[in-house]
Formats: sequence, C-alpha cells, structure tokens
Amino acid sequence: MRAEIISVGTELLLGQIVDTNAAYLSKILPEYGVDLHYRATVGDNESRLADALRFALKRSDIVFTIGGLGPTADDLTKETVAKVMGDEMMMHEESAALLRKFFAARGIEMPETNLKQALMPRRGRVLPNPMGTAPGAVFEGDGKAVILLPGPPREFIPMVNAQVVPYLKERVGEGAGIIRSRVLRIAGMGESTVAEMVSDLLEGSNPTVAPLASPGEVHLRITAKADTVADAVEMIDEMDRKITAILGEHIFGRDDETLEQIVVKKLIERGLTLALAESCTGGLIGNRITDVSGSSATLLAGIISYSNQAKKDILGVDEQLLDKYGAVSEQVAKAMAEGARKVTGADVALSVTGIAGPTGGTETKPVGLVYIALSSDNGTVAHEHRFSGSRFDIKLRSSQTALDMLRTYLG
Amino acid sequence: MRAEIISVGTELLLGQIVDTNAAYLSKILPEYGVDLHYRATVGDNESRLADALRFALKRSDIVFTIGGLGPTADDLTKETVAKVMGDEMMMHEESAALLRKFFAARGIEMPETNLKQALMPRRGRVLPNPMGTAPGAVFEGDGKAVILLPGPPREFIPMVNAQVVPYLKERVGEGAGIIRSRVLRIAGMGESTVAEMVSDLLEGSNPTVAPLASPGEVHLRITAKADTVADAVEMIDEMDRKITAILGEHIFGRDDETLEQIVVKKLIERGLTLALAESCTGGLIGNRITDVSGSSATLLAGIISYSNQAKKDILGVDEQLLDKYGAVSEQVAKAMAEGARKVTGADVALSVTGIAGPTGGTETKPVGLVYIALSSDNGTVAHEHRFSGSRFDIKLRSSQTALDMLRTYLG
Repeated sequence: MRAEIISVGTELLLGQIVDTNAAYLSKILPEYGVDLHYRATVGDNESRLADALRFALKRSDIVFTIGGLGPTADDLTKETVAKVMGDEMMMHEESAALLRKFFAARGIEMPETNLKQALMPRRGRVLPNPMGTAPGAVFEGDGKAVILLPGPPREFIPMVNAQVVPYLKERVGEGAGIIRSRVLRIAGMGESTVAEMVSDLLEGSNPTVAPLASPGEVHLRITAKADTVADAVEMIDEMDRKITAILGEHIFGRDDETLEQIVVKKLIERGLTLALAESCTGGLIGNRITDVSGSSATLLAGIISYSNQAKKDILGVDEQLLDKYGAVSEQVAKAMAEGARKVTGADVALSVTGIAGPTGGTETKPVGLVYIALSSDNGTVAHEHRFSGSRFDIKLRSSQTALDMLRTYLG
Repeated sequence: MRAEIISVGTELLLGQIVDTNAAYLSKILPEYGVDLHYRATVGDNESRLADALRFALKRSDIVFTIGGLGPTADDLTKETVAKVMGDEMMMHEESAALLRKFFAARGIEMPETNLKQALMPRRGRVLPNPMGTAPGAVFEGDGKAVILLPGPPREFIPMVNAQVVPYLKERVGEGAGIIRSRVLRIAGMGESTVAEMVSDLLEGSNPTVAPLASPGEVHLRITAKADTVADAVEMIDEMDRKITAILGEHIFGRDDETLEQIVVKKLIERGLTLALAESCTGGLIGNRITDVSGSSATLLAGIISYSNQAKKDILGVDEQLLDKYGAVSEQVAKAMAEGARKVTGADVALSVTGIAGPTGGTETKPVGLVYIALSSDNGTVAHEHRFSGSRFDIKLRSSQTALDMLRTYLG
C-alpha cells in the first residue's frame, strides 16, 4: 500500500507556517503498513493542486491532502478533488446541522459561506471534526482513495487519530510489513553523552536506534520492522531493556509522556501537595504542571515573584538576603522555596530564580545563570546552573531542570 | 523566475524530523523575486529523486535540493543531480584540503569515504560550508540551475544566507517581480466573521488577501507582486489601510508581533504595573508576558491560585463568595483581580478562573466556562466566556482573551 501526502496552502509555500502536520502523518503511516514515498506542497491554486493530485493518483493507492477545507474562497481542496476523482458534491445535512449548532452554541449567526464546509462527496464518506467546523472527507474510486484532512493542527491531529487510523486498519490490515517505533525520553544528559553511552546500540539495522536532541531533553528512537505487531513490539522491548540497563533513571518516560505528567503522577501517588515560586521562568512551570489533567489534586499554588517586592511581600524572603546576595542567588532561591511552602502549606516547593536575558546579565551574574531550589520536610537544596541560548531556551531549560529535580527527589 | 524545493531524506518521510529548512527557504525566495510553486519530499532513493528532479526541471528555472550531501552510502543527491543534468563529478582539491583540515583540527583520522563530499560538478560551482564537512554545489545547464544544500539546519541556514542570497541577487536582480507579504493579526473575532467583513477584498489578485485561523486569533495575509520592493510595499500599505478601516482595533499587530508583546509595550509606555491572578490558565499568561524581554519593567507578580485555599490566603478572596458562587464565577474572578492588585500594589490586575477540562465540568458549569476580570483605578470588570476544544485549547483561548481584554483596556 503506497501513499502520498499533498499539503495545500500558500502560507506553506511562503514559509509562514512549518508543516508539522505532514510530519505527524508521516510518523503514523508506517505503523499501519503504509509506505510513504512522496510528499508535495502546493499553494491555494486549483490547477496546480489538480496536477499534483493526478500525478499522485498514478503512483499511489492513497493520497492524503492537508488543508484548504475552510469556509473561504481560497479553500478549494474539496472541489478540486471532486473534479479529479469525477465525483459530485452534495449538501451533507448532518454536517450542516452540526455547523449551525456550532455557531448557535456560541451565540453567533453563521455566515452563509460556512455552509460550503458541509458539502461532501456523493460516493465517499464524511470524517467528523469535533474540534472545528470543517469535516474531513474520503473520496473513493478505481480502488484508490483521497483522504481530505483539515489544516489547523488542533483539528488535524484528533482527526488522524480518531478517523484515519481506523480507516487504515480496516483497509490495510496486518502482515503488510509492520513498522513500529518507541521513543525513550532522557533528562539530565546531553545528546553526545547519551550517544556515546549507547554507541554500540546505534550500529544495528533492525531495530534501529537513533538519537535526537529536543530542547532540554534527548530522545532515543527505537524502530523495528517485522511481519506482525507482536514481533515488532518484542524487538523494541528487548532493545528498550538494553538501553535502560545503561541509562537507568535518566530515562524519564516513553513516547508522548512528558516530564510534567510523570511528576504530577508521582506527586499524586505519594499524596504530596506542591507549591511553586517562579522568577525567571515566569509561570512556565505552573503552565506545564497545569497542562496535566488532574494536576489540581497536587498543585496548591504558584507565585510568579517577578519583582523583589513580591519576593518579600508574598513569599516572605528576607530583605537582607536580597540586599546581600541579590535576587539571583542560592540563598534567595532557597528562601523562595521555603516561603512558598510556608504560605501555601504544601509538602514540597520548587523555586527558580535566574537571568533569562537577553539583557540584565553582568560579569559575575551572566545571562543563563539560574538557581533552582527544592524544599520539603527533608530540608532545602539548591543548585546553580548555567544555561545557554535564547530567552525562551533558558526559560525552557530552567523549567525542564526544575521538573527533573523534583522527579529525582520523588524517586 | 520559478523555483521548486526538493527535500531529500527518509527521516523526513518517516516523520522523524519536521522540515523547517524548506519553510526557511520558502520565506527567503519571494523576497528576491523568485516564485515558489511547489515543494516535494522524497526519501534516500535514487530513482525517485531522479524522477522528482526531472519533473521539477520541466516546470521551473531553479531547483533547490536540501539534504543527502553527507559521507554515507545513502547520501546520493550530488550523484543523482549530476546524472540528471548530464554533468560529471571531479575531485575539488580545495574542498578536499578543507575536509582534511577539518578532521585534523579535531585530531580524528578522516575516513576515506568522506572524500566523496569533495566531489563537485565540472560545470557548476562550489558553495563553501564553514559549519560542516559537506559543501553545497550549483549545477547549471540549459538556462536552469540546481542548487544543492546540506540538511542540518545549522549548516543549511548560514549557507542560504551567505551563498544562496547573493546568487539569487546576481541571477534575478530587481525588476523580475518582487513578492512581499504582511500578516495582519486579529483578536476577538472568528475566521469566518473576519472573512465576511473583508469579503470584497479577498477577491483581488494583486495584492491578494488570504485569511488564516491560528489558535485564538485570525491572520489576514496580504501578498503583493511588483517590479520593485518600494512598489510592493506601497501596494501592501494601501491594502493594509483598507482592511484597518474595516476591522479597526481588532487588528492588534502585524507579522511576528504577538499579543503579549503589544500588551507589554503599551503597559510600559503608560508607566503601568501589572499583576496576574491565574486559576485555570495555571501560569500561561505569566509565561507569555515573561516571554517578552523587558517585561520585568511592568510585571510585579502573578499568583497561580489553583486551590481555594490559595485564593483565600494569598489573594484574600472572601470565603463566603467561594461558598456562595463557587470558584468559577464572576464574583470570584473580580475578587481575584482586586486581591492581586491589593497584594502587589499593581496599577492593573488581570484574573482568570474557569474549567479547562476534560473533567470537572457540571451541567451548570460546563468545561470551557471561563470568567476573566480586569481591575484598575477605574473599577473592576468581568466577562463570562465559553470556549471549546481540549484542555490546552481552553487554556490558550483564555489567555488570548485575557490579554486582548487588557490590550483593549489600554487602548
């Protein structure tokens, strides 16, 4: 089973958007035995899209289009696919009713142009879109299929997971040469250190192991090819055990598990409550923790103590400490964590103070200098770090290191 | 002058890498009068790459390839382009010497296979690579050119800037049809409402206006083609004025300006200090505000009051209000904003309380119900909102709406 992806949108050709959707779908396809041989990007232009579609249908069994399903005049994927596939469009009443409901629920009158989104292929099927107003569609004919998916990632990803995956399972079945992969996520080590520690394992051809650096963490991707899912998973499990024997506790999660999910899970399992005192991270740690559903069971509060006054007034940091050591110091980091515990009554508190830059650094306290402290019944510990990169990088690395400090503390 | 980009690499087709290089180059090309009509991605496969090249050379004047210049056996871009262009490869002694020097400087013996990277087209030219071992190359013939660029972004981006841009300037010059674009960023309205309000302007062909939905905001992209940069900018300015006359204050920024940048700028201009009280956004607003360099001049503190206890203890919210109306209510939102002002002494405070889901909703207070309040010397105002989508979407839309409320207040 061969597939191609056609991403549609002038904003892609102008480089205003990076095509993460195509990468997401590319990752999914081999897991269901579908070979992706080709990807193309065209603008919002009917004749070029039609050319790309005809070309793709010659070579491939399934063609995915991404984008161009919106309500406006330059959204023309559906019309173009219908022409190329020789199908007709009809009003899909169910989708039209959902559209009306969507607008009514928001108390907005629906512009009539939106009804265009409920036009569907006569011979194909509709892919519901619970996250937006543009349903997807499957056009079928001559043993080939064109699958139309929406462009906004928050609509695209759920539709791939809920609609495309079952479709592929039904159409392709097992035994077609299955590829499975798993990502091991590692914190507290750099990419080259990880690569050196597992260097022997990087040489294999099936399964393969490939290192990949991601901001603040390192990923090792294990990919196995086999005839059945069970065989592929067994090969991955074996490699996972080998890598785990080498890297141990530095592996914090697998696949989509995030550091914040692991930390929230451990805190809830232990029945511990958490408080945060963030200076240079400015709420990023709180934001990450509260991205985890159920985090309200452990997070009591966070204080973004961006000014010295807030450090004193809300966290009770001693003015003398601020005067003597400065806001970016081990002493103040410790006082912030202790203050956050006191004011909230939390079991554990995490604090961060540092210089995110690009300005504000001095010779003795350069941009990237960050102190992270953890306070609990067992006392208060602080570490000094020096991070590099942009303001955004330094915030992200600080949050990552703080969450990893908490993870390690929780064991 | 028409161009196409071919990205080469099985890791792209497997979705292990997102193709940021192609987006980067896409953004550069129109600035030098080059029209990008098509982008393709192929794996490390000689025959498919050759097909893609032949196809691209039929339609376009310049073809860029990205990737496949490394020393290993699956790097075959240069060999394939040479065949398709009918050119020969020869050892480029200068590049070979640089390669040897590169390895010597690291105290590593150079594997002989690396010399492959110094093979260059006989008729073309070499693009030096100060960041790595793989030089780029230009193959020329029949008035067409194929430009080969390396895959690692840290090598690719400097080569585009230092080699490709001067090449394009020389080859294309001005007067060949310059393309410029500008994005108007709109908050507080949906995509279809925006499209309907400016529908007449969406019909034009030069400049074109295209709407695009982004989480929590809508973008309108104006694109103009002209003989000179000055003409293109003038056309854009004129269209910008027309759209601004219709959408007015709903346009909060242009191009890469974010809502948080605008808000921080306005606060600093007015000499106003800010405090935050975040419940369901969990620090996201603080994180966005502190992403802006210089935000410490206005943000005094934020309180992530995730528990009722924190709302009472830190923000001084009256227990009776919490009992009577619940934490997610207009009354508590107002009390949070007023409490944040009181505890920090800030001029303006913004508060958010709501149900981000996916659990925790009830019939009267469903997931997505969010109250946002703003408190200042002029009093306290709160609004009720109903957002849809995932937990992440609801947090993002809440933060976006809160920042836009503050922007509107600042005028």
